[in-house]
Amino acid sequence: MPELPAEIMSHKDYLHTYVSVDCLVYGFDGRSLNLLLVERRGMDGVADLKLPGSIIQNSEDTDQAAGRVLTELTGIKKMKLRQFRCFSSPERLSDPKDIKWLESEYGPRVDRLITVAYMALTRIDRRLNEVSKYKSARWCPLDNIGRMPFDHNRIVEQSLGEIRDWVTTEPAIMFELLPPKFTEAELRRLYEAVHGRKYDVRNFHKKMVAMDYVVKLDEKQRGVAHRAARYYKFDKVLYKNRMHSA
Amino acid sequence: MPELPAEIMSHKDYLHTYVSVDCLVYGFDGRSLNLLLVERRGMDGVADLKLPGSIIQNSEDTDQAAGRVLTELTGIKKMKLRQFRCFSSPERLSDPKDIKWLESEYGPRVDRLITVAYMALTRIDRRLNEVSKYKSARWCPLDNIGRMPFDHNRIVEQSLGEIRDWVTTEPAIMFELLPPKFTEAELRRLYEAVHGRKYDVRNFHKKMVAMDYVVKLDEKQRGVAHRAARYYKFDKVLYKNRMHSA
Repeated sequence: MPELPAEIMSHKDYLHTYVSVDCLVYGFDGRSLNLLLVERRGMDGVADLKLPGSIIQNSEDTDQAAGRVLTELTGIKKMKLRQFRCFSSPERLSDPKDIKWLESEYGPRVDRLITVAYMALTRIDRRLNEVSKYKSARWCPLDNIGRMPFDHNRIVEQSLGEIRDWVTTEPAIMFELLPPKFTEAELRRLYEAVHGRKYDVRNFHKKMVAMDYVVKLDEKQRGVAHRAARYYKFDKVLYKNRMHSA
Repeated sequence: MPELPAEIMSHKDYLHTYVSVDCLVYGFDGRSLNLLLVERRGMDGVADLKLPGSIIQNSEDTDQAAGRVLTELTGIKKMKLRQFRCFSSPERLSDPKDIKWLESEYGPRVDRLITVAYMALTRIDRRLNEVSKYKSARWCPLDNIGRMPFDHNRIVEQSLGEIRDWVTTEPAIMFELLPPKFTEAELRRLYEAVHGRKYDVRNFHKKMVAMDYVVKLDEKQRGVAHRAARYYKFDKVLYKNRMHSA
């Protein structure tokens, strides 16, 4: 047997490495992006919020584990999930409160917790799974998320760049966040929320017109104080053709 | 202590979960993409090729582990690395030969091996690290890679889609694969290799002209049988300005 590398001489230290998944479920409330968070009740009985997640099981890979968490959370069997990053800093499991909670949930002695983050974009008015163990799940505006356990705040930060890459390579994804009928202003505010910058109204109109898969409807808003705006819809078929010809 | 979920009742099974990194280092030989692979000598003395990789150490995260492997392999301290996916199927560690090799390298009883794949694009004429433990490292054309250990063939397959996403969101990356001076034909063949399709010569010329950061040089090929082609270079500064104004 060849001489073992130093990191392995101490490979006992790997004994209690756990691998988990954490899910970022994004919704859009017409103004800003929201994240679906779940409650964690600590030993001290005080609750805080965290990303929904789970240790992966023996029989599943991380994709399946993330799908399981989301089905449990939303009741939806097939949700478009994007794996975006593995977070593995040795420091991510340093807060004694987190270690305590983890060991009470998953058994004693967790030396290291490595997590794989997944992202999903969905409509914010979607009904959540009443019967799930996540009865405490709730939408939180991005700018109003407090300190979360582990490195969940860092994961959220990094996910924003990931959404931008995702909508760049797969623009259709943007429309998962909108109702079937939406106004130009709603679409513009969504772009502003995702890209974190303002769009000039006129320039954005040109941009939208260029998206020939955003189709004008024969219908306007009703019962609004301001001048009723026209509705648009996203046309999957036109989009697919557009992408194939591109 | 709350009742433990089923998957944890058997959490002894997690005792020997290892987390590793595997690196896809891509080069371009003027015709096709090549991968930098390293030799693995099995118990039986027979060698095969695999992706360069390592178990992660206690003190490092997966980014640092991948950087360590690449520095060891190429001698380059700062190489642009992109984490692209965690591969965690329970079946990836099923071949007895792989298990034997792993345990001889990293110690006994590895139940599960989860790996995080990284990608780097580099010039194929780059000198490799002579003093490294990877003396056996060699470039292999993508279409000429045999059966590799674990799920390395699957990782390679999936990395192709990832390169396409990468060059879409960060076009500059493409030029990491080319010499400082290159011809239009070389750039076109690189695009064809990356996107896996032919480009019409005239259309590609239009495409290249649109990249104002690809700058024509006052220099042509020398000592070539065919008509000497003009050289171009990639201009980082023009590129940065272009991206900022975009």
